[in-house]
Amino acid sequence: MALSFQLEAEDSQTAARAGRFATAHGEVRTPAFMPVGTVGSVKTLTPDELAGAGTEILLSNTYHLWLRPGVETVRRMGGLHRFMGWGGPILTDSGGFQVMSLSPLRRVTDHGVEFRSHLDGSKLTLTPEEAIRIQDGLGSDIAMSFDELVEMPAPDDVVRAAVDRTLLWAGRGLAERERLRGEGRGAMALFGINQGGVSAAERARCFERLGALPFDGFALGGLWVGEGRSLGLEMVEHDCALFPKDRPRYLMGVGHPLDVVEAVARGVDLFDCVLPTRNARRGTVFISTGRLVVKNAAYAEDERPLDPECDCYTCERFTRAYLRHLFAARELLGMRLASIHAVHHLLSVVRRAREAVLAGRYEAFRREFVERYHSGETLAPRQPAGA
Amino acid sequence: MALSFQLEAEDSQTAARAGRFATAHGEVRTPAFMPVGTVGSVKTLTPDELAGAGTEILLSNTYHLWLRPGVETVRRMGGLHRFMGWGGPILTDSGGFQVMSLSPLRRVTDHGVEFRSHLDGSKLTLTPEEAIRIQDGLGSDIAMSFDELVEMPAPDDVVRAAVDRTLLWAGRGLAERERLRGEGRGAMALFGINQGGVSAAERARCFERLGALPFDGFALGGLWVGEGRSLGLEMVEHDCALFPKDRPRYLMGVGHPLDVVEAVARGVDLFDCVLPTRNARRGTVFISTGRLVVKNAAYAEDERPLDPECDCYTCERFTRAYLRHLFAARELLGMRLASIHAVHHLLSVVRRAREAVLAGRYEAFRREFVERYHSGETLAPRQPAGA
Repeated sequence: MALSFQLEAEDSQTAARAGRFATAHGEVRTPAFMPVGTVGSVKTLTPDELAGAGTEILLSNTYHLWLRPGVETVRRMGGLHRFMGWGGPILTDSGGFQVMSLSPLRRVTDHGVEFRSHLDGSKLTLTPEEAIRIQDGLGSDIAMSFDELVEMPAPDDVVRAAVDRTLLWAGRGLAERERLRGEGRGAMALFGINQGGVSAAERARCFERLGALPFDGFALGGLWVGEGRSLGLEMVEHDCALFPKDRPRYLMGVGHPLDVVEAVARGVDLFDCVLPTRNARRGTVFISTGRLVVKNAAYAEDERPLDPECDCYTCERFTRAYLRHLFAARELLGMRLASIHAVHHLLSVVRRAREAVLAGRYEAFRREFVERYHSGETLAPRQPAGA
Repeated sequence: MALSFQLEAEDSQTAARAGRFATAHGEVRTPAFMPVGTVGSVKTLTPDELAGAGTEILLSNTYHLWLRPGVETVRRMGGLHRFMGWGGPILTDSGGFQVMSLSPLRRVTDHGVEFRSHLDGSKLTLTPEEAIRIQDGLGSDIAMSFDELVEMPAPDDVVRAAVDRTLLWAGRGLAERERLRGEGRGAMALFGINQGGVSAAERARCFERLGALPFDGFALGGLWVGEGRSLGLEMVEHDCALFPKDRPRYLMGVGHPLDVVEAVARGVDLFDCVLPTRNARRGTVFISTGRLVVKNAAYAEDERPLDPECDCYTCERFTRAYLRHLFAARELLGMRLASIHAVHHLLSVVRRAREAVLAGRYEAFRREFVERYHSGETLAPRQPAGA
């Protein structure tokens, strides 16, 4: 197995767990959050800033890198780690989500997905085998199996068909990695993705076969796509109860601090999401006490940092007033400073979650975290004394 | 005098000089280059990155900050230094250039300039006195006198009238600073600006009176606005011969490495320019051997740094291939990394110029610098061995 996942502690009152796994590019402690380096860059940030914020693993998008600059270019430049200057672990997605969400025309068959590039309209085909070869070419530490997503809500038979195809493709992806290993490649770990939408029965049916396959970890797919938070968390609880304890569990595309804390309570180890950094670039950040829309004029003379409880570079050096000004003036530095806070904040959430599990007090941590988040304290703008 | 300029060395073969001056926020060694923090931020960069690149003094734009966020806001936030998190010296321009170049409608009288804000069209008036009050309110270390610019080419009588008005305003600006000092404010240094376009006679006539005023330094105004490089350098030589030796000389808006090196040879101490960073944000940077258009597809697999002779963060960590990719994918990190190099490069030019003056070999430095710049070496794209 390419990852040696080690379970370090299980919470007694919740399903929260703490663990760690090793990759060729270093160890990852879980629960972990992966900032998203879509096209080989976590927007506006350097690898050193990511490391400084406590990032232990990044996610990068196979589809984007495949189209531009292309796998061969990345490979000739020494692989994705060297290309983007990030020495730590990288997980790559399978490209399936972008093929579905970005391509205007697509045709799905058992063979794979035919679609048109969102960049130049050229006709391309992504198959489960190709998705594995691309991820291997990029030099990924953890690859994801190519799965079929369906847009929700969807009729039962569509969900069922997607589960069947996901299982078919899961097997073919594993076989392709074996073939690559025969050629001295394919050293990466490979995660399977459980599907079945919001049908507990379908998800269970999917995992009955998926769980029997020699994947190095399992992801919870097809959630947080509009089904609503409580139903999503219900599915998380359901899947985690089925997943084996000795492999990491990855909830894809989830990054709201409250969702992360609740999903950890249900047994999830790994997260990724563009939400915190995308919000940040638009002038909104999560802080300990809620959601701060710092671009609002009301903060024009608020001398406090974004989050008085945060020790990130931005919060230690700059005021809300300055960030508000940068957003009003459309200065890129505003996006950058807000992004630094955003990444730092999410990483501090998972770090504190981990510490709470190890200390045997996850339930108390969750309660305090949720309460503090909903308090809204420090969100109200403050005027300077002399105003 | 608010600045105690100390002349440290004069080159024997050229008019190049090395010096230093002290401000309330620290010392500046000359020749010096000031990165431009237009609206209170050197685009994409943090104050720490600027300091790391060797920045000793920044320029910020009075006009922009006056309009947004407003002087009172900056003042209430503790002044510009604290607002933007930069602890070193700041020079502010007078606002005159932006009033002329950005405002669609304007009327110039002896009183001042009536114009409309480029942001919301509101009607505003900037006078020589107001320009001083604004710069004082921002907390500037070095303020600039409000002058009248004329667009070139211009008839002689227009140039003459602008010189007369510049002189009138120079006296009123100094008087306003005196008035502020009577109130315990106005601690900043104040530079006068010499005008007269490309007429040596008018520039001499201007400086005859300007030079008699108690300014802390003098700027060469109205140059590098389309008159051509050789004529510009001729005017620089002419002005510097008139300027007193015991005060700093500032050539406004000049930042091409070759121009900086030539202007230093003619006796200039201080420069500012948006060109290096603006170019950088568009994918073009100055390197030791010329102008590198790194966004070009030809660099897609060039593993060398932007400038193999540079030791900036970008050059030490990233390849041209990666930067080219970031520009192709419109990633903000590309702008940032190129800007880091751009600032670092210009600062290394003035630092090396200073060292050459102190070592008594400026002429040799200039010759080598210009020769190396024109060599074009390392500009040609390189393909990887395996391609």
